Amino acid sequence: MEFVTALVFIFIACACGIVWAIFNWMAVHKVEIHHKHEGLTELLQGAEQEKIETLLEIGEHIQDGAQAFLREEYTDCSVFLAIMAVLLIFISPWSSLAFVLGAATSMLCGYLGMAIATAANYRTAFSAITSLANAFQMAYRGGCVMGFLLVSISLSILTLIIIIYNAIIVKSEDNNFEDLVTMFDYVAAYGLGGSTFALFGRVGGGIYTKAADVGADLVGKVEKNLPEDSPKNPATIADNVGDNVGDIAGMGADLFGSFAESTCAALVVSSTQLRVAQGDSYVIDISQLMYPLMVSAFGIGICILVSAYAVYISKVNHINKIESTLKFQLLLSTVALSPIIIGIAYWCLPADYVMVAADGSIQLQELKPWHAFLCSLMGLWSGLLIGYFTEYMTSHSYTPVREVAKSCGTGAATNIIYGLALGYLSTIVPIVAIAITALLSMKMLSFYGVALAALGMLSNLTIGLAIDAYGPISDNAGGIAEMSELGENVRESTDALDAAGNTTAAIGKGFAIGSAALVSLSLYGGYLTRIQTYKVGDQYPFAEGAKIDDPIIFAMLLVGAMLPYAFSAFTMKSVGKAALQMVEEVRRQLHEHPGIYAGTEEPDFRACIAISTKASLKEMIPPGLLVIVTPTAVGLFLGPYAVAGLLPGALVSGVQMAISASNTGGAWDNAKKYIEAGFYRNEAGEVKKKGSDEHKAAVIGDTVGDPLKDTSGPSLNILIKLMAILSLVLAGAFCRTGWLYKPQ
Amino acid sequence: MEFVTALVFIFIACACGIVWAIFNWMAVHKVEIHHKHEGLTELLQGAEQEKIETLLEIGEHIQDGAQAFLREEYTDCSVFLAIMAVLLIFISPWSSLAFVLGAATSMLCGYLGMAIATAANYRTAFSAITSLANAFQMAYRGGCVMGFLLVSISLSILTLIIIIYNAIIVKSEDNNFEDLVTMFDYVAAYGLGGSTFALFGRVGGGIYTKAADVGADLVGKVEKNLPEDSPKNPATIADNVGDNVGDIAGMGADLFGSFAESTCAALVVSSTQLRVAQGDSYVIDISQLMYPLMVSAFGIGICILVSAYAVYISKVNHINKIESTLKFQLLLSTVALSPIIIGIAYWCLPADYVMVAADGSIQLQELKPWHAFLCSLMGLWSGLLIGYFTEYMTSHSYTPVREVAKSCGTGAATNIIYGLALGYLSTIVPIVAIAITALLSMKMLSFYGVALAALGMLSNLTIGLAIDAYGPISDNAGGIAEMSELGENVRESTDALDAAGNTTAAIGKGFAIGSAALVSLSLYGGYLTRIQTYKVGDQYPFAEGAKIDDPIIFAMLLVGAMLPYAFSAFTMKSVGKAALQMVEEVRRQLHEHPGIYAGTEEPDFRACIAISTKASLKEMIPPGLLVIVTPTAVGLFLGPYAVAGLLPGALVSGVQMAISASNTGGAWDNAKKYIEAGFYRNEAGEVKKKGSDEHKAAVIGDTVGDPLKDTSGPSLNILIKLMAILSLVLAGAFCRTGWLYKPQ
Repeated sequence: MEFVTALVFIFIACACGIVWAIFNWMAVHKVEIHHKHEGLTELLQGAEQEKIETLLEIGEHIQDGAQAFLREEYTDCSVFLAIMAVLLIFISPWSSLAFVLGAATSMLCGYLGMAIATAANYRTAFSAITSLANAFQMAYRGGCVMGFLLVSISLSILTLIIIIYNAIIVKSEDNNFEDLVTMFDYVAAYGLGGSTFALFGRVGGGIYTKAADVGADLVGKVEKNLPEDSPKNPATIADNVGDNVGDIAGMGADLFGSFAESTCAALVVSSTQLRVAQGDSYVIDISQLMYPLMVSAFGIGICILVSAYAVYISKVNHINKIESTLKFQLLLSTVALSPIIIGIAYWCLPADYVMVAADGSIQLQELKPWHAFLCSLMGLWSGLLIGYFTEYMTSHSYTPVREVAKSCGTGAATNIIYGLALGYLSTIVPIVAIAITALLSMKMLSFYGVALAALGMLSNLTIGLAIDAYGPISDNAGGIAEMSELGENVRESTDALDAAGNTTAAIGKGFAIGSAALVSLSLYGGYLTRIQTYKVGDQYPFAEGAKIDDPIIFAMLLVGAMLPYAFSAFTMKSVGKAALQMVEEVRRQLHEHPGIYAGTEEPDFRACIAISTKASLKEMIPPGLLVIVTPTAVGLFLGPYAVAGLLPGALVSGVQMAISASNTGGAWDNAKKYIEAGFYRNEAGEVKKKGSDEHKAAVIGDTVGDPLKDTSGPSLNILIKLMAILSLVLAGAFCRTGWLYKPQ
Repeated sequence: MEFVTALVFIFIACACGIVWAIFNWMAVHKVEIHHKHEGLTELLQGAEQEKIETLLEIGEHIQDGAQAFLREEYTDCSVFLAIMAVLLIFISPWSSLAFVLGAATSMLCGYLGMAIATAANYRTAFSAITSLANAFQMAYRGGCVMGFLLVSISLSILTLIIIIYNAIIVKSEDNNFEDLVTMFDYVAAYGLGGSTFALFGRVGGGIYTKAADVGADLVGKVEKNLPEDSPKNPATIADNVGDNVGDIAGMGADLFGSFAESTCAALVVSSTQLRVAQGDSYVIDISQLMYPLMVSAFGIGICILVSAYAVYISKVNHINKIESTLKFQLLLSTVALSPIIIGIAYWCLPADYVMVAADGSIQLQELKPWHAFLCSLMGLWSGLLIGYFTEYMTSHSYTPVREVAKSCGTGAATNIIYGLALGYLSTIVPIVAIAITALLSMKMLSFYGVALAALGMLSNLTIGLAIDAYGPISDNAGGIAEMSELGENVRESTDALDAAGNTTAAIGKGFAIGSAALVSLSLYGGYLTRIQTYKVGDQYPFAEGAKIDDPIIFAMLLVGAMLPYAFSAFTMKSVGKAALQMVEEVRRQLHEHPGIYAGTEEPDFRACIAISTKASLKEMIPPGLLVIVTPTAVGLFLGPYAVAGLLPGALVSGVQMAISASNTGGAWDNAKKYIEAGFYRNEAGEVKKKGSDEHKAAVIGDTVGDPLKDTSGPSLNILIKLMAILSLVLAGAFCRTGWLYKPQ
């Protein structure tokens, strides 16, 4: 296959993705909200008109709040990103440029996602007045806009960078693969930029959303017995804003990072290791490296068809159908992509190729396209397995969450114990799946195989993102319905949408973590290759690689495994502190203005938004620096071997914590929803719903789970990815420094 | 130094330790309890005599319950241990014998500890009637009996085994070090036996104690508003029994395991690697390997003096002095041992020695006794550092716990969030200390250095055990005082003793975890050496060692890091399940017999004891099998490299979880005590004590912390140690099998 052919296909796919996103965007915006909406005149009489106005007003509040926060966050981060970009010029101006583009793409995608989500949320609430099917359509289409825009934009910008860098840097002579390696090293900074911004997006957004959520719950639900999202609770709007900046913008930036990094990892590793025999020598051409990009491109195409099925064919006219429809999207895209990928492999990859080791010797030979296909396939299907297993552990349709709900019968303490145990237990299946995938793909294609597995897992990312973003949109819709007092049946619809959203959010986190682990591993492979090929005169001082029994490597393995704990401590305490401030503000308002509780006075939403904004922007700095400074300092002072221990330590420990934190949180949330939906019966057979002791115990679990599942857990993905890509970019610098420690 | 000289010193030290233990035992038993006790006639009038009788009765109940449980536990475990012993005969009958002796010693130490603790607890309560100083003496002397008996007995039995095996196995010719290596391989099974029993002791005891504790709290404190240890609560006696079987017998077995394993690791590694130049060749003699045993022997001697200081000179006549006195014991023993160890090093070690690598080449040369001294010293002082830091994180005299207590002002959820964050944060200092110790001791003396560091940390183990066992004795004393309604001032004394006990228990756990990490690392070193020296014909198929980028090693590193999570899930859920059964039984009794709550009817303690016993014996099986079966199966099916990844994965992940779990639990417990002691004031400046919402929130945290700090956390030590020593013993078998996976 020619390089140009590949480019044409990639751009066509990206264009289709963008068109489909715009089409859905328009479909969402077509719903104009007024009380004369078709069929509504019968439903809404007299005073009901007012509610629609409230709905619109709240929607605007949320939109404004989210935009204001993103503006401030972006401004603050830009300063930091600019400093990093300047420092990167010392590595190479090309790296610096790619870094800036990666960060900018990440910001753009986060912003667009937020924009569509805040437009879709109140429309979803509004559509729930007419029917569940309409509401589902609205939320799902909102998610689709986010998913397709993100993947298409990032793939096209990455491809553009490759075209330009290739034209400038790679000389058109034979055996030009040293230029190729150099070029993809520069391109890798695109992933670094994306991930660096994602770190702040995830952490800042995570602290924002959970400070508001926890604060709102603590006073509202626990102390004052207000229902969730009560318009009397001053922190409610901040909570809803948080869903958009944390779960939408933050999550989008995170998964953009995964996507960009795994593509960069595949390109870096393959340019260094993949070779084709030509006469007596082994060479490589850029057109032979396009397989990973082509998988992503075809992924967009397949996902358009799959999501069109959900939009046009499947009908979600009953509560029971919500979760199964969303799950079916995942299954369908996985099944449809499997045969496509084998075609791409045989089309794009050389019929025979080898992988060379760091010292130039041939490490793996007689490789065929199906080796690459198998790696992608394992990633794709282990993603599905992780997704389905996550659903099993966090949906209240199954035993695990029901057990947690039952444990609320003996109070909050048993609820917490059971929830933590569930999270710990839920690591087993994903870890075994990731371990087997890593093992076999490394066996077949070394670290290139791992990168392909990561990309395979992300090949249906658009669908993954769509059903993930669906979650916070529905959550917001529920909040807006409650605040505009739209009535019991509307709230029932949005509650059901939201419960399914908790599960899909957990599935999305499962994907994010699984892919992060594989991405990080393949970047680690790239890092090892870099330090092993580092040459001083005629010597390769770091050629030995990473032995666990090397003192510095073992010590750093231990320290690396500690970092996720330190990071989680920072983020959780930040949420706790910010939530306490929120609690005080809410108490103050309710105390000083009794009219709020009576419903005659409007609470001051803006004060709460300001607290969340300020706290999150301030509190995201220490955990952010921890992730960036630690590997840099370790590398500069203790040298490249130390980092070669630090990275896998953080990886193997962080992935467990991330999985258990997000599943524990998801399970607690749905255990609470299970009780609220009236499914819980105590030993005497009485149904216990809102207001019962059991429900109070469940709310405590849910509140504890909030920072676990939405702040510390998902941020850990970024920790393990960012540390790895940063080390890859700085590998040369580490080899030249390592001032304090010399290997034996 | 001659071999015989070393033996004489070791046995003299052990004899002194045993005599000192017996002396303290007698001092405890000298307190005869009757109401005519000196000075008591004025204090106790009329009806008070009855209380003393109740006290005696409760003391006997606890004693009987603990004995009955240990009998059943020992019977059940014996079956399993016998099976393992039979299987070990296939490795070697000598291994099997050492295994049996290790397990038997562990059982004996656990039993003796339990016996003295159950004798000291009610005497402590009784002594608190006369004075705080007397009560402290009683509890501390009880702890001393435990500490000195355990270390002296285990050291003397181990030395005996070495004498006998040496006489039988080692041939008296020159260059007999192959025999020495073989012999110490057999001796290592002593550590395996100790650790295998410790696993069941810790897990079984941990489930027992926490099922009872959590169950008692859930109904008593939360539902019925009974004070802790109320005689009206049917689960109270079971709770007190649990302290003895879990925190005393279980903890004793655990630390015996650490001690035996680190000694065995030092002997195994040094017999393989430590060599002295003799003419052209390098040799080793058993007398040159006695350094680690001598450090332990002198440790006993110094600790006798240090504990005598606490018994005879320091006066604990005020509540504030308790914690400082106990802490000072640690400091004093550390300071006193430091110069002694350098003397031992120069006396026992060859003036010049080398360490050889697995392939026989010289790995480290020009080694002097001070290298070994420095390793021991680093272990000793990092133990102290970990101990003091743990105290800082878990005592309510400092900011961290007070912050957690303050967070109770906004309810249980923030208490849980802050507590979890505290635990995560508390990993930083211990991990950095362990990492630096591991790094420098490996640099100096390879894995022998790590084993010496572990033993250095355990060289003042007797004091560590004494102040650790002091905790549950005081806890029990408080319970007994409450149940026999001995009056406010007595309860105040025992509460203060107990609060200090929570902190020393956390310190003890810190030691246990730190030493476990180093022990496990040195055993891992022994394992690597074993597989690297495994020879088939002229080939060494596993000579490459453990490279992180080897597919099977990385995959297993990931799986290994998951095991502590799976293990914790099992144990926590076991506690939860057993606690629910306990709750039901307590509710049943209180419901069917209203007289219990009114105080006219005695609850049925035995039914609760039976529940805890049955549950713990049943529930300890799955986690126990997980630890034993996983490395065995991985080794047999996936080969020795797979285990070489599994072990460090479990180690680096498990140590973080263990530290954070036990510190979180300790902090919650003491945050609750802080509120109960009346130190907590809300924003309005009101003191909030028992019965307030703040206290209820604190109780929920305490209840969640129970299984974390006393079941899953400390059991993880055993997981990381036992997996390592089991793999070391089975290393040869793994090299011969590995059916499913061949290295590239």
